Amino acid sequence: MSRVLLTGAAGFIGTHTLAPLLAAGHEVHAISRNPPQACGSPTHPDGGRLVWHAADLTDPLRVPTLVSEIAADSLLHLAWYVQHGSYWNSAENVVWAEATLRLLRAFQQAGGRRAVLAGTCAEYEWSRAVYQESSAPLFPATLYGAAKHATHILSESFARSAGLELAWGRIFMPYGPGERGARLVPSVVQALLGGREAPLSDGTQVRDFMFVEDVARAFSAILDSTVEGAVNVASGRPCTLERMIGAFAAETGRPELLRWGALPARTGEPKELVADVRRLREEVGFVPQVRLADGVRRTLWWWRERSAMAA
Amino acid sequence: MSRVLLTGAAGFIGTHTLAPLLAAGHEVHAISRNPPQACGSPTHPDGGRLVWHAADLTDPLRVPTLVSEIAADSLLHLAWYVQHGSYWNSAENVVWAEATLRLLRAFQQAGGRRAVLAGTCAEYEWSRAVYQESSAPLFPATLYGAAKHATHILSESFARSAGLELAWGRIFMPYGPGERGARLVPSVVQALLGGREAPLSDGTQVRDFMFVEDVARAFSAILDSTVEGAVNVASGRPCTLERMIGAFAAETGRPELLRWGALPARTGEPKELVADVRRLREEVGFVPQVRLADGVRRTLWWWRERSAMAA
Repeated sequence: MSRVLLTGAAGFIGTHTLAPLLAAGHEVHAISRNPPQACGSPTHPDGGRLVWHAADLTDPLRVPTLVSEIAADSLLHLAWYVQHGSYWNSAENVVWAEATLRLLRAFQQAGGRRAVLAGTCAEYEWSRAVYQESSAPLFPATLYGAAKHATHILSESFARSAGLELAWGRIFMPYGPGERGARLVPSVVQALLGGREAPLSDGTQVRDFMFVEDVARAFSAILDSTVEGAVNVASGRPCTLERMIGAFAAETGRPELLRWGALPARTGEPKELVADVRRLREEVGFVPQVRLADGVRRTLWWWRERSAMAA
Repeated sequence: MSRVLLTGAAGFIGTHTLAPLLAAGHEVHAISRNPPQACGSPTHPDGGRLVWHAADLTDPLRVPTLVSEIAADSLLHLAWYVQHGSYWNSAENVVWAEATLRLLRAFQQAGGRRAVLAGTCAEYEWSRAVYQESSAPLFPATLYGAAKHATHILSESFARSAGLELAWGRIFMPYGPGERGARLVPSVVQALLGGREAPLSDGTQVRDFMFVEDVARAFSAILDSTVEGAVNVASGRPCTLERMIGAFAAETGRPELLRWGALPARTGEPKELVADVRRLREEVGFVPQVRLADGVRRTLWWWRERSAMAA
């Protein structure tokens, strides 16, 4: 049991980390720009305790004070700028690198002992098919990847100097309930459910998908482990876009809406991007629980529920 | 001619950059926590114009406003935390990485076109004798080196995204007038001039010394060039500590005060640390002007003048 400071708590992955963190018995202090409820201290059914704090992590004056008040033992930092379409090369990545470093310093100064931060597969040089944490070259093609990579280098060195434990979870391709509307899976799902055609690239790209609840459970497991350094947070299972999107189309019964080859492949994107997950499996001891078919079904339920509520 | 924003303007290297920048016809806006004179706009004999601004670059609220008011075309950013004894692993390195990124964003937002930032030989993995900018592995052994390296990665990627020109000057071993008292050369010089014994390591370490006025002129030349990316700012001439310190001792006539071998070599320090200076020489077109013997004499003059003034 420890007091956990969770950032990005209302985000795509963050939302799903609340359950495993509380189930592990932690007291969770969740920070969000717009908390989903008024600040309070409800007790979770699992016996954990959840406290929301409304704060903008890029505010240089607010963060040190808030972090010092919370005085958490552990930090799970998931917040970052993730606006679809612009996040790859936005200057906001620099703002979030600064915010992350400031947060980490404040956490350490307030007595924090262990920090887990979210990295990305975009830190790797996209020149191979399977990426192992310590042997794959790190040479990001985007400002997003460079900002995460630079933040990792500096955070890890700071942690070593300051006697802080630090792990860095490199996220590959999460999918599932809560994903933003303009990204690949949600946009295709919305087309399929709305009976509209979905224009797609040729679909031969190989990716490493992981159901978002598994991603969240993996981060919770990393936090509760003693593992330090970079850890890929991924399934390790290669899957073509064609297979992934095809599974959604089959489940909705509308495969004829998919227009494979209608869009060009994005320039600069790698053909294959799959994680070596031995560290996650063997050192953290985490294995994903949700198979692709189940993840697809649960994602569709969520979208159907959403449209039922909106209707 | 352009308007240059200079940081660290009252520091060891910064002080010496004023003359070459003004001689090149630039209007120099010099920022310092404690400017050496009241803010004003004196005209330099060379026809340049110098304006001092008192500001703390780590102040997140002050910097964007000041930088926007100055609206410089070029930025020469030399300021960093350099407290002898503590700077290798102080958390202040993280503070200065944040401050540098914030400064660079503000400069770009205010219409800046070209930035030159100070890096360090401590970014390299200290595993070889001669270091070339793009081929030598970058794996810093210290938090100082990691903070500079991370700042470089992120600055360069941001500059590429934002259409900003950026060069990164990796400083090796500057020496000369104005160097802080506790560092190697000043502490030995003070012992020699005071008639006290100077305890030293065995002196066989090979380093790349450069007279501080040459370092400052090199930065001014990089600013006026179109060179982008990392450039070593060094002489390229290997010199043992024994030879360097011996030159100071000979010039003062007190070689018997040197106690070689009285101190152990510092752990983690490399045996040899010499720059490949082809980029500086061939692409920037800069060659150092001050030979070691002259640099030693001029450093001693400065120390003698200082003690004469203090007496």
